[in-house]
This record gives sequence, structure tokens and C-alpha cells, in this order.
Amino acid sequence: MKNKETEGLSLLGSGQTRYVFDYDSDILESFANKYPDNNYFVRLNCPEFTSLCPITGQPDFGTMIINYIPDQKLVESKSLKLYLFSFRNHGGFHEDVVNIIMKDLIRLLEPRYIEVIGEFSPRGGISIHPYSNYGQPDSKWVEFAVKRLLKYGK
Amino acid sequence: MKNKETEGLSLLGSGQTRYVFDYDSDILESFANKYPDNNYFVRLNCPEFTSLCPITGQPDFGTMIINYIPDQKLVESKSLKLYLFSFRNHGGFHEDVVNIIMKDLIRLLEPRYIEVIGEFSPRGGISIHPYSNYGQPDSKWVEFAVKRLLKYGK
Amino acid sequence: MKNKETEGLSLLGSGQTRYVFDYDSDILESFANKYPDNNYFVRLNCPEFTSLCPITGQPDFGTMIINYIPDQKLVESKSLKLYLFSFRNHGGFHEDVVNIIMKDLIRLLEPRYIEVIGEFSPRGGISIHPYSNYGQPDSKWVEFAVKRLLKYGK
Amino acid sequence: MKNKETEGLSLLGSGQTRYVFDYDSDILESFANKYPDNNYFVRLNCPEFTSLCPITGQPDFGTMIINYIPDQKLVESKSLKLYLFSFRNHGGFHEDVVNIIMKDLIRLLEPRYIEVIGEFSPRGGISIHPYSNYGQPDSKWVEFAVKRLLKYGK
Amino acid sequence: MKNKETEGLSLLGSGQTRYVFDYDSDILESFANKYPDNNYFVRLNCPEFTSLCPITGQPDFGTMIINYIPDQKLVESKSLKLYLFSFRNHGGFHEDVVNIIMKDLIRLLEPRYIEVIGEFSPRGGISIHPYSNYGQPDSKWVEFAVKRLLKYGK
Amino acid sequence: MKNKETEGLSLLGSGQTRYVFDYDSDILESFANKYPDNNYFVRLNCPEFTSLCPITGQPDFGTMIINYIPDQKLVESKSLKLYLFSFRNHGGFHEDVVNIIMKDLIRLLEPRYIEVIGEFSPRGGISIHPYSNYGQPDSKWVEFAVKRLLKYGK
Amino acid sequence: MKNKETEGLSLLGSGQTRYVFDYDSDILESFANKYPDNNYFVRLNCPEFTSLCPITGQPDFGTMIINYIPDQKLVESKSLKLYLFSFRNHGGFHEDVVNIIMKDLIRLLEPRYIEVIGEFSPRGGISIHPYSNYGQPDSKWVEFAVKRLLKYGK
Amino acid sequence: MKNKETEGLSLLGSGQTRYVFDYDSDILESFANKYPDNNYFVRLNCPEFTSLCPITGQPDFGTMIINYIPDQKLVESKSLKLYLFSFRNHGGFHEDVVNIIMKDLIRLLEPRYIEVIGEFSPRGGISIHPYSNYGQPDSKWVEFAVKRLLKYGK
Amino acid sequence: MKNKETEGLSLLGSGQTRYVFDYDSDILESFANKYPDNNYFVRLNCPEFTSLCPITGQPDFGTMIINYIPDQKLVESKSLKLYLFSFRNHGGFHEDVVNIIMKDLIRLLEPRYIEVIGEFSPRGGISIHPYSNYGQPDSKWVEFAVKRLLKYGK
Amino acid sequence: MKNKETEGLSLLGSGQTRYVFDYDSDILESFANKYPDNNYFVRLNCPEFTSLCPITGQPDFGTMIINYIPDQKLVESKSLKLYLFSFRNHGGFHEDVVNIIMKDLIRLLEPRYIEVIGEFSPRGGISIHPYSNYGQPDSKWVEFAVKRLLKYGK
Ligand SMILES: [Ca+2]
Ligand SMILES: [Ca+2]
Ligand SMILES: [Ca+2]
Ligand SMILES: [Ca+2]
Ligand SMILES: [Ca+2]
Ligand SMILES: [Ca+2]
Ligand SMILES: [Ca+2]
Ligand SMILES: [Ca+2]
Ligand SMILES: [Ca+2]
Ligand SMILES: [Ca+2]
Ligand SMILES: [Ca+2]
Ligand SMILES: [Ca+2]
Ligand SMILES: [Ca+2]
Ligand SMILES: [Ca+2]
Ligand SMILES: [Ca+2]
Ligand SMILES: [Ca+2]
Repeated sequence: MKNKETEGLSLLGSGQTRYVFDYDSDILESFANKYPDNNYFVRLNCPEFTSLCPITGQPDFGTMIINYIPDQKLVESKSLKLYLFSFRNHGGFHEDVVNIIMKDLIRLLEPRYIEVIGEFSPRGGISIHPYSNYGQPDSKWVEFAVKRLLKYGK
Repeated sequence: MKNKETEGLSLLGSGQTRYVFDYDSDILESFANKYPDNNYFVRLNCPEFTSLCPITGQPDFGTMIINYIPDQKLVESKSLKLYLFSFRNHGGFHEDVVNIIMKDLIRLLEPRYIEVIGEFSPRGGISIHPYSNYGQPDSKWVEFAVKRLLKYGK
Repeated sequence: MKNKETEGLSLLGSGQTRYVFDYDSDILESFANKYPDNNYFVRLNCPEFTSLCPITGQPDFGTMIINYIPDQKLVESKSLKLYLFSFRNHGGFHEDVVNIIMKDLIRLLEPRYIEVIGEFSPRGGISIHPYSNYGQPDSKWVEFAVKRLLKYGK
Repeated sequence: MKNKETEGLSLLGSGQTRYVFDYDSDILESFANKYPDNNYFVRLNCPEFTSLCPITGQPDFGTMIINYIPDQKLVESKSLKLYLFSFRNHGGFHEDVVNIIMKDLIRLLEPRYIEVIGEFSPRGGISIHPYSNYGQPDSKWVEFAVKRLLKYGK
Repeated sequence: MKNKETEGLSLLGSGQTRYVFDYDSDILESFANKYPDNNYFVRLNCPEFTSLCPITGQPDFGTMIINYIPDQKLVESKSLKLYLFSFRNHGGFHEDVVNIIMKDLIRLLEPRYIEVIGEFSPRGGISIHPYSNYGQPDSKWVEFAVKRLLKYGK
Repeated sequence: MKNKETEGLSLLGSGQTRYVFDYDSDILESFANKYPDNNYFVRLNCPEFTSLCPITGQPDFGTMIINYIPDQKLVESKSLKLYLFSFRNHGGFHEDVVNIIMKDLIRLLEPRYIEVIGEFSPRGGISIHPYSNYGQPDSKWVEFAVKRLLKYGK
Repeated sequence: MKNKETEGLSLLGSGQTRYVFDYDSDILESFANKYPDNNYFVRLNCPEFTSLCPITGQPDFGTMIINYIPDQKLVESKSLKLYLFSFRNHGGFHEDVVNIIMKDLIRLLEPRYIEVIGEFSPRGGISIHPYSNYGQPDSKWVEFAVKRLLKYGK
Repeated sequence: MKNKETEGLSLLGSGQTRYVFDYDSDILESFANKYPDNNYFVRLNCPEFTSLCPITGQPDFGTMIINYIPDQKLVESKSLKLYLFSFRNHGGFHEDVVNIIMKDLIRLLEPRYIEVIGEFSPRGGISIHPYSNYGQPDSKWVEFAVKRLLKYGK
Repeated sequence: MKNKETEGLSLLGSGQTRYVFDYDSDILESFANKYPDNNYFVRLNCPEFTSLCPITGQPDFGTMIINYIPDQKLVESKSLKLYLFSFRNHGGFHEDVVNIIMKDLIRLLEPRYIEVIGEFSPRGGISIHPYSNYGQPDSKWVEFAVKRLLKYGK
Repeated sequence: MKNKETEGLSLLGSGQTRYVFDYDSDILESFANKYPDNNYFVRLNCPEFTSLCPITGQPDFGTMIINYIPDQKLVESKSLKLYLFSFRNHGGFHEDVVNIIMKDLIRLLEPRYIEVIGEFSPRGGISIHPYSNYGQPDSKWVEFAVKRLLKYGK
């Protein structure tokens, strides 16, 4: 069923997958958005995220939620899975991990709008949930991002 | 109990129903909105949606949620059921399926406002939920659509 | 405990109640709002609604939710119960039923604002939830109704 | 797709359905159990039940749950739906309704085991949930019924 | 719709109800069980219970759950409602209230089996839920009661 | 641990409490808000509310939710508990009860903003949930109240 | 990572998967149970099941739950997925589908014990949930199956 | 409202309460069981438990659930609250805390049966829930305890 | 894994931790925000909070939720845990505790925006949930705080 | 706070922890059970488990639940955490992982009874939940294990 619109995708449907456990943003792949005239959201729920505490080396666990409004590109979801797996042996504070993922997706997709939420499991009785967002510079999406921030957790 | 207002409906209450499993937007039927002076929402919850992955051919499953504010026409729900069944052997990315359903309903209904949300089941630990919306061109409903987008997932 | 403020109420606390199963809006009764200087909401949750499909005659089931801001009158809840029971043998599309109930309550109460939501049970795997609202003409409540519409389902 | 095993079924897939709202146990239809060598449960969840209070005539609402182990016959579910609809204008105490439904199904199916639970909505702040069961006389299913009774609500 | 089987019921459907707020077990009424050949459960959920603390006089709140297997009599639910209301100004420890209700119902109904559970709201951060049961003396229901006790809370 | 800031509080920590079951707004006590420079919300969840139906005398049950932004005073929560208990033998429509509680708290606290929600249990299959609010006259809190009303139930 | 214990498995980890939508029990594959000395359960939750109504041809949807105690063999889960997909264009009553799946797995695995539950979506307001089970003939597992049947739905 | 049956209770309803934060089992008080002829359960839900880790000194949090069948005595719930507060500065492993509480209550009450469950919050991603029980020696309650153990977590 | 960005942190990963149970705001530690160009939220869920009632000395329990938008500094979560533990023997009204925590974090972090919510357990049937927030003076965050207040509990 | 009963524990409260990600059962540590005269359950909920698929190398995620009745020894929970972390780079089928964990704990603790449940996340739309248990040989706990197996999933 392969056709023109999936040109450039190397991972989905390919025979043998290699899993990388050292952080690597090159794994991410995109494909063309066929509806650039329309502003629409894509929500990606990723409950199988794990990384390491940068101080103690202890594994952390969490759910990553990625919501974005595409411009010309969409992220291919198998490449996103492999990219998130690459944090498996990576040490990072929760606040860093969320910002790194957002920045890598901005570089890949140049989206109109994007937000990343990390719902991490508790450590010492406290759980940390960073929420970061972004709107395309010099566009109405900057204000859109401020308004979304205002609604966080409501 | 048939009467004038259901004129033109061929499916509801008819004896024998034929199920089509190849995508076909001609199945959709509409009937007249008796309250065009009033702006109101109709919500359609459709938890029995299935299509195929366009790359691998593997079945996908999801819930389609359709919210719209009618102008002159309403979608007949049995024809909507049959239309959604017609995706059964159709290959499409999640983002495409949601946009195709929205465009077919816009063509049928010319609604004041419409939004379609596809809550698909996870593949590889990630689930994708596209949300697309639309307001009647050159009307206040364009801005209405932008404001609804802002509230997605809140 | 009867007193002046319940004058005109014929149903609540009366000995013998007659149940009517043919649609009849005359059953509805109102009483005076003692707080007309204050804008406040009254929410009425009615999970025991049933009517008939206008095409097939098959029973439909649903929950009616009525939210309104009274002006000079409040609906008496026993009369509302009896009025909703009067749909028992009435045939109507879901979208019609919701609009009829709203219009009957507007005629009775002339409220500042009112909205009616019908959460019907699924038929053929699809459930329909119409949401209709209204603001007093030539008042700020017209814009209030538009803003509530914008928030539907959020 | 009709074939030998559905012989005698008059309702499922037939063109025009007539809805009866006066209690009538003749509506029920059965078909042959193809697995009589195996003891297995069939659970039927019926959340759209309504009848009338025998004293006041007021509508009652509830969910009927029917669990049975078939012997030679299975109940056809569309005929069950129509049978349950026939209680719509029927007056009966909650305890009676549950026992009547069980007895009608015993007469129809002669099942190895059957239980009927009626989860009725509250009246006056109290809800009544009768649970009745039965095992084929002179068989191990009599004791089976006693043991199921022991587990009710646990 | 009154008929022979409801003979002796004075409360249900009667015009004017008097509410008594001092404990009075005479309010309870029963009617004949039409299915004495069958052992079946009747569950009564009563979430609107309130009484007073016997030491401090402070109001207590809770849900009463009554499950019983009738012998020759059933409790009429409106009389049960009025009986439970009669605890409104009554002072009693949670453990006493549950045992008193059970004993009054045993006297009224002489049931095969009965259990009463009181799920009271917390006081000082602790909530108390007594569970008492009973089987007809010199019958298999004594052992039935012991076995139900064993399953409490499981 | 008593100190200056609790001066004037007669109930909290006192030995013997008297429970009054006739409506009495004098029971309410306030203490000084130490943070008048800051606008903050205090939410009070009161699930143990009961009063009487003004027509039939039957007990009603519900949850009262009180949200307010204090100006110079805070309500002391034990006095609030005793005040709410004083409705126990008081007859009032649901809509009245909510407005009375709000007005009594306005008189006591002169708050910047306050809202009272009464979530009453169903009667005759319908439950009533009044929501009333208020902003300090001639201040930005009037508009704040209108905006909160707009969000009710969303 | 392939090794001796996965010998004979043709599907898991293979490059290109073919999806078959006509019922075919040959798709199922097993591998050796390494712990035959221990009796343990394997639960398989399969929420993405769809087949066709044998009378009308309309798609049905449901969740299949398979619990079994292996003897010498375990079912390989990718082959189970493909086998369940093969019902996609197959017409079968709910009761048949559950028994067919159980019998195919018995033939494949010769398990000590197995049970299959089909939780199908409602049609016409009624949902059907068949539960079938089996114990190895001439063993203690026959009685085990009877006891599990006794606990169904508790 | 004090009377004979509460003789010996020093805490409930007394004016001034002293809170002790060093483990002290002398705080516990009992009163006479008025229904010793009946076997019944008393469930005590205590969600406000805190103690210290015996190794690190870090606070632990959990819910204590106590279910018992009284013989001649009942535990007074205010004394239980104060007793549980006395663990506030006490260091103990989760398994010890549960066994100590059970033993103290056995000494106080000599109950027919008792069980204590401690649902502690997670530490390091793992939560520990000990469950301990006991039946009066040389009685049928010893076997009762074994059977309850068998049902733990089911 | 220690590096430059964690300079100044004394608690995380250190060998031996000392737990202080007298209120002490000096325990709090911060580290540098690496993304000061981006406005993002950090949510801290702290369900293990306990303090004492300032009048009676009785322990109170609750969940603290802290949401903030950092400027140049982030709070280190282990120091936050220890700081919250320091309320263990501290007496404070619920409204005070929430405002104190917010003010201490403002002093430590000088955040763009911060809000603190205390969801305390019920006392006497009423639970108190204060919500306090703050925006950096002379910035757009002041208005942001007002708007967040407007959304509280919605 | 260290004392005699924790003798031999090397991990809990120690300064620096080393995390091992290759399967290693030597990490597990035990300490003496102080209540060997009492049969009691210890439940360990471990929602942060991850291992690798033995065929494809893809990460798997799940929750491990361990319930056991100790004999002379208890597992120390920090060592259990580290042991479970050691599966992070280990390849194993779900059924193997559960049996390996159970066998390692049997070797360490020689418990009276133990059961291990692995609730793994779905792959390809199917989730696998193995449940394995064990009773001390030549004791009543063998039959106890059979009876627990019978209750699995009920
Ligand atoms: Ca964390
Ligand atoms: Ca923790
Ligand atoms: Ca998907
Ligand atoms: Ca998946
Ligand atoms: Ca419908
Ligand atoms: Ca349906
Ligand atoms: Ca009822
Ligand atoms: Ca009621
Ligand atoms: Ca309490
Ligand atoms: Ca009602
Ligand atoms: Ca079905
Ligand atoms: Ca249906
Ligand atoms: Ca933890
Ligand atoms: Ca409190
Ligand atoms: Ca309380
Ligand atoms: Ca899957």
C-alpha cells in the first residue's frame, strides 16, 4: 500500500527495527501534511516513557503527551516511539526532558503550535508534571500559546 | 409514522440494509433542519470505528466524535453509521481519516460549524487523537472554530 | 406548610397524581422567583426520559439536562416530571425533542437564559446528544448564549 | 446469510418491526444451542427497561441483567428486546417484574441455570434491586443456584 | 390500580404523608410475598440516612444497605423510607443503629435471611461501617449467614 | 495554642457544643483575614446538608459547596457546620436554601466574591442543583461574578 | 535474540505481515511452556475484536478475554492477534464466536484449563457477553471449570 | 445524653483533648457490646495514618482498615483516633505497624475475629500493603481467619 | 553524574538526610532555570502533607498542589519535600498554611506566576480547600493571576 | 535508628546507590520476620517495571504485583526495587519474567505462600497478564495455592 505521500519514511512497515537507548534526535522522521489549509490538532499519548535521574542514575517513569497544530509536516509515530525509547539510558531532570522533546519536535516539524506535558511518577511522595508550549514566531500562534498556558490544569 | 419532514431518507426504517466496506461518501443522507433560526449543537458519539493502516494493512480501531451546528441540514444517523462502516477495508492514516470525514460532512451539510475527533487505540504504545474543525467561510463561525481549537483537550 | 408563595401550584403535595403519556405542554407549572435581582443558575438533571422513534416507533431512552437563569418565574419540578413523562408515547427525532422542550420552557418561564441537553442512548452503535440554548432577545443574554455554545463539551 | 440454524426466528433481520407495549410473553423466541455438551454462561445487559408502578401508575426505570446457562435453547436477543418493551404500559412491583421475567424465560428455554437482576432507579430516596435465580429441578443446578445466591452482591 | 395483593398497605399512593422524626418501628408495613417457593434476594439501597450521636447530639449521616431473602412477607418501601426518617432525632451509636434496624425488620418480616450494612460518614478522620446479619433459626439459613459474614468486604 | 488572631471565636475548641435544628444565622462566626492584600479562593465542601420540603415536610439531602474570595473576614468552619445543621428542621425550596445561605454569608463576611452551589438528591427522578453567586457592588467583582456564571457546569 | 525456545514461531519479529480477514484457525502458533511443573494463569485482553452479524451482515464489536492454565504449550500473541483479525469478514452469533475461539485454542494448546469471555457492544439496547470454559478431560480441571463457572460475574 | 452504657469512656464528648505523638497503647478505650449473641462485623476506615521509617526517620503515610467481629467489647472510635495519632513520631516498618495495631486491639477487645490492613503510600516506586488477621484461639474463628486470608485481594 | 548546573544543591543524592519537623523555610533550595526564554508550567503534586490545628493541636492532613511558571530559578524537589515535612509539628489554619507556602516559594524563586492549592481532609463533615495565586508585580503576570483565579474549580 | 533487627541489610538508608540494569538476583536482601507465629500477607505493588522483548528487543512495560505470606523472612523493599530495575536491559517473554521473579523470591524467602502477577501494557492491541503462584511443599499451603488460582480474576 506504499505510495507517494509516504516517501522518505524509513521505519514504518520495515522488516527489522533497531532500538537505540542513547538519546538521539536523528531518529525522528516527518511526512507531508496534506491539509495545510486547515488548522487542526494532533494529540499523541505516550504512556511508556522512561529516563534516568541525572544525579542518582535511578530510573524515572512517566507519560508524555504531545499536542500540536501542524504546518507543512507531521511526525511519523513509529519514529516518535523510537525517539522516546532513546531516553532510556539518558539522564535528565523532568523539566529538561520536556523542553528537549519540545525543541526537537519544533526543529523537525516547524509546527504552528506545540505543547508537551510530562506526567512523571512520584519520587519521595512528590510528582512533577512540566508543561511547555510554543507558537510559531511572528504569528498569531504566539498569543495562542499564551492562552493555552493560561488554561493549563483547568 | 413517516411524514413530510423525512422525505428523501431511504435508509431509516427500510427493510433490508446492505453493508458496504469500501469507502463511499455517497451513502450519507441528510434531512431538513426544522430550527435554522436557532444555533444548536448536535453531538454524535461513534465508538465502533475501524479502518486499515495504509502502510501495513493492519486494522486500526477508534472512536469518532462529531460535533456540529447545523445550518439547513442534519445528517441522518443510520446513513452516518453505514458511511463509517465503509472505512472497514479502507487504508488511511489517522490524520487523513479525520479530515476526510469532516470534509464529506461539510459537503453534505454545509454546517455553520463542525469538528471531528478521532480517538484511536494505541499502536506501539502510542495513541493518536486528531482533532479537526471548520467554520462557514466569511462568517462569524470562522472565529468560532479558532476559539474551539484553543480549548481542545482542556 | 403551604403559603402564599406556592399559590397556583396544583400538583406538588396533592393527593392523587394522574400520569399522561401523550405529549402535553399544559402540564407545566411555574411559581414566582423570589430573587429576581440576582442572576443564578438552576440545573435540573432528568435521567428518566423516554420517547419513541418517529420512523420506527421504537422506544428511545436518554437523560435530559436543563440549565436556566430565571427571570420572574421558576419551573415547579413535579410538573416538569409529569411533562417529561408525557413524551412516553410521543414520536420525535432526538434533535426535535430537545428543541421542543426548550421552546415549551421558554414560553412558560421567559427565562434570561436556558439550555437543554439530551444525552440519548445509542442506536446502531451511535449515540446522539443535541444541545440547544437561548438568551432573552434584545439583552446581554443573547451574547451569553453564544459564549455558552462555544464551551459545549469542553 | 440465513441458514438452517436460525429456522423459526421471525424477528431478526425482518423488514418491519411492530412494538407492543402491553405485557406479552409470546413475543419471546428461541433458537437451538449448538454447544449443549458445554456448560457456558450467556449474559444479557438490558439498561433500557421501563414499567409502571402498580399502585400509582408512575413510570419506573431500571436495568435488567439476565445470566443463564443454556440447555437446548438460546433466547434470540431481538425478541428479548421486544418482550422487555412490552412492560412499558404494564403495572408491576419491582419484585414481581423480576420474577415474571425469570419465569417466562424458564418456560421458553428450560435452561440449566438462570438468574435475573433488576437494578431499579430510586423512588423516595430508596432503590430496590431484586435478584432471583433458578436451577433445573432434580439436577446439580439446584445446588448451583443456592451457591450463586450466597455470592449475591459480593 | 389497587387490588387484593396490596391489601393492608396504608401509605403507598395515599394522599397526605406525615413525617415522624422520633424513632418508631410501628411505621413499618409488609405485604405478601407471591413467590415463597423461590429463594431470592431483595436489595434496598438507602443513601439518605441521618441520626444523632448519642453522646454529643451531633448529626450523623450514612447509607443503609438492606439485603434480605423473604419468607412470607416483603417490606413496603415507602413505609421503610418513613421508618428510616424516624431516626432523624434519635441518638444511637452506629453499631446500635444497624442492629436495631435489623431486629425491627426481623420482627416484621421473619425473613429467611437478612443483612444490614451502615456506611457512615467520617468523624475525626475515621468512618465506621457495621455489618450485621441473621438466618432463620433451626434452618440452613443460619449457616448461610455465617458464610456471608465470611465474605464481608471481599 | 489560642492567640490574638482567634479572638472572638467562641466555638472552635470549646468543650461542649449545643446543636440547634431551627434555622439561625446568628450561629455564624468570622475571624480576621491575614492576607487582605491577596485575592484568593476558599472552597468549603459540605456533603452533610439536610433540610425539609416546604410543601410536604419530607427531608431533603444534598451537598453544599461554598467558594469565596475573602475581603477582611473568613468564616470559621465549626460555626459554618453548626449553621448548616440549623436547617435540619427548616422547610425551604432548594432554590431558596442556596440563596439564603449566600445572603447570610455576604452579611457576615462582605466578601469580594462568593458562590454557593446546592447539589440536592433526586426527588421523583429529578435532581435540582441551584448555583448562585455575587460580586462586591461597585467593584470589578461584579463582572467577575458574571464571568463565573458563564462557566457554570463547564 | 532468537534462540532455541522460539523455534517454530514464524510470525513474531518477521519482516512483512499478511493480514487475513476470512476466518482461519491455521494462523494460530504455539511455543513450549518452560514451566509445566507449575500451574499458572495467562490472561490475554483483546479489546479490538470485530466480526459480522450472521443474519444482517452488520459489523459487531467487542472485547475478547482469554484466561488459560497452560500444559505443554503457550499461544504466541502475534499469531493470536492475526487469528482474531481473521474474524473481520466472518458472520457469527456472539455465542458461536466465543465457543469457536475456545475450541480452536483447545485444539492448539491442549491446556489444563481455559475460559473465553466476549464482551460485545450493544445492539438494540442489549449487549451480550458469553462466557465459556473447559477443563482437561479426566482430570481435576473438570471440577475447576465448574467452580469457575460458579464465580462468573461475581 | 450520657447513660449507663457509656460508663468508663473518658474521651468522647469531653471538653479538652490532649494529642500524644509517642506510641502509647494505653490510650485505647472500649465499651460493652450490647449484641454479643450476634456475630457482626465492624469496619473502621482510617485514612489519616502517619508514622516514621525506622531506618531513615522519613515520614510514611497510609490508610489503616480494621475489620473485627466483637465478643464482649467494642473499641471507642475517638480513643482509636488518638491511639493512631500516637504513631506520629514512632519509627516502624510497615509490616510491624500493622501487627502491633492488631495485637493492641486483641489485648483490648479479645474479639472473635480481627483483621488489619495497612495501605501505605509508595516509596521508591513500590507500595507495601500488609494484611494481618486473627481468630479467637480454640474456636471456629481460627478457621474463619484462614479462610479470610485466602480471599485477601480477591 | 553531578555537573555544573546542579551546583549549590546540597540535598539530592546526598548520603544521609535529616528530617526536621518544626517549620523552617531555610530548607528550600533552588537551581537555575535553563529555559528562561520560554514560559512553561511546573506542577508539583504533594499528597503527603500534614500539620496541626492551631486551636486544638489535632493533626490535619491534605494534598498540596503547586503550579508555577519559573523565571530564573526552579525549586529542587527533595528540598521541597523536606520543607513540607517541616510543617509536621506546626500549628496553622488551612488558609494560613497555603499562603505561607506560596510566600516562601515566591521569596525563593521570584517566579513569573505561582499558585498553591491545599486540599485538606474533612473535619466535622466539612473540608476546606484554599487556593492562592500570584503574578510578578508590574508585569503581564498580574493579569494572568486574575484570570487563573476566575477559572478556579472550573 | 538502626538496630539489631535490620542487621544484614546493606542498602536501605545507605548513602550512595548503584543501579544495575542487567538481570541479577543477588541484589535481593531479606530480613527476619518478627511474627512467624502469625500467617499474614504482604502485598507489594510495583508499577514501574520494564524489560525487553526477547525477539525484537523492544522495551516492554508493566506493573508487578507480589503477594506473599512470609515464613522466617521478609524481602527488603529497596533491594526489591533494585532487583526489578535489573530487568531493564534483560530480554524475556512476559510469562518467563513472572515465573523468574517468583522463583527468585522463593529461593530468597522460602515463603509459606507467594503469587506474582504481571500486568503488561498492550502490544498489537493485546495485553498479557501472567499470574503464577506457589505453596510451601508438603504443607497446607499447596492446597492454598490451588484455591487462590481458582479465584484469579474474580
Ligand atoms: Ca518524579
Ligand atoms: Ca514517592
Ligand atoms: Ca493508533
Ligand atoms: Ca501498543
Ligand atoms: Ca440514540
Ligand atoms: Ca447501538
Ligand atoms: Ca425504585
Ligand atoms: Ca428518590
Ligand atoms: Ca471525620
Ligand atoms: Ca427524585
Ligand atoms: Ca451485541
Ligand atoms: Ca443498542
Ligand atoms: Ca515511591
Ligand atoms: Ca479540614
Ligand atoms: Ca468530618
Ligand atoms: Ca498492543
